[in-house]
Amino acid sequence: MSKPERQPAGAATVTTPTDREIRIERIFNAPRDRVWQAMTDPDLISQWWGRGNELVIERLEVERGGHWRFVEHGADGVHGFEGRFREVTAPERVVQTFEWDGMPGYVVVNTMTLEDLGDGRTKLVTVSLFHTTEERDGMLSSGMEIGMNQSYAALDEVLAGLG
Amino acid sequence: MSKPERQPAGAATVTTPTDREIRIERIFNAPRDRVWQAMTDPDLISQWWGRGNELVIERLEVERGGHWRFVEHGADGVHGFEGRFREVTAPERVVQTFEWDGMPGYVVVNTMTLEDLGDGRTKLVTVSLFHTTEERDGMLSSGMEIGMNQSYAALDEVLAGLG
Repeated sequence: MSKPERQPAGAATVTTPTDREIRIERIFNAPRDRVWQAMTDPDLISQWWGRGNELVIERLEVERGGHWRFVEHGADGVHGFEGRFREVTAPERVVQTFEWDGMPGYVVVNTMTLEDLGDGRTKLVTVSLFHTTEERDGMLSSGMEIGMNQSYAALDEVLAGLG
Repeated sequence: MSKPERQPAGAATVTTPTDREIRIERIFNAPRDRVWQAMTDPDLISQWWGRGNELVIERLEVERGGHWRFVEHGADGVHGFEGRFREVTAPERVVQTFEWDGMPGYVVVNTMTLEDLGDGRTKLVTVSLFHTTEERDGMLSSGMEIGMNQSYAALDEVLAGLG
């Protein structure tokens, strides 16, 4: 008998629970501790966050009050992203702010939870809260979903390598 | 004949135009260019922002995308504040984010406009937008209004000294 095939985790589910929020759900074929590790260790983040682009992690202080700043070097130029940690509860919950240098001062609050599904898989849920509906809709129409799915596919590979 | 007496500028007016905003209005007995200078020059800011407390200006890049960080050394301890400039239009408008180290990742967007009243006075209007009503109400009950009026009284003195 062969080992049971793992189903591909597939694309993230994107919904808009309120007029200022985006909710993202994605299942990963890895235990929660391993997903947490891949999302907080700079050497691992640099392997998936940039979707194949070089990612320079200028700052990453994974603790309440800590700052983070990533710079992605892609074919379309250099893009900086940064924010600050509001809450860090390993291995299950992070609340952090997010802004892109291209729209400085437009700040999203991302609440990320990792749920242990009990079968070796982990469900990631991220709720993003914007200051206005216009900012939320701008993010939705920015190609965010494509980029996110590319990042998460790269994260699948990182997680498989850790297994 | 004596020179006409200047009326004292008095306390700021604080209102809540929506359930996530605070609006502050305050008149200063100085021309707009001088108020702008006192609000953007670090040597002048350090004379009024801290209301008599030592203020260390760690970073102040008054331009779109620039960061700012001030650390106030008071009797009750050391308090850091920081944010980023979304828009800077001298001498009339600044949009910038604001957060206090004590509540990291809770980000307010402050839109400040300076109106030239044409009689040597300037009206400052600041609208602060919060992510939630709870955060807005937390700010209102924090003693913010007292601290702000102390800062603006100190700013009156700085402006008088520039005259």
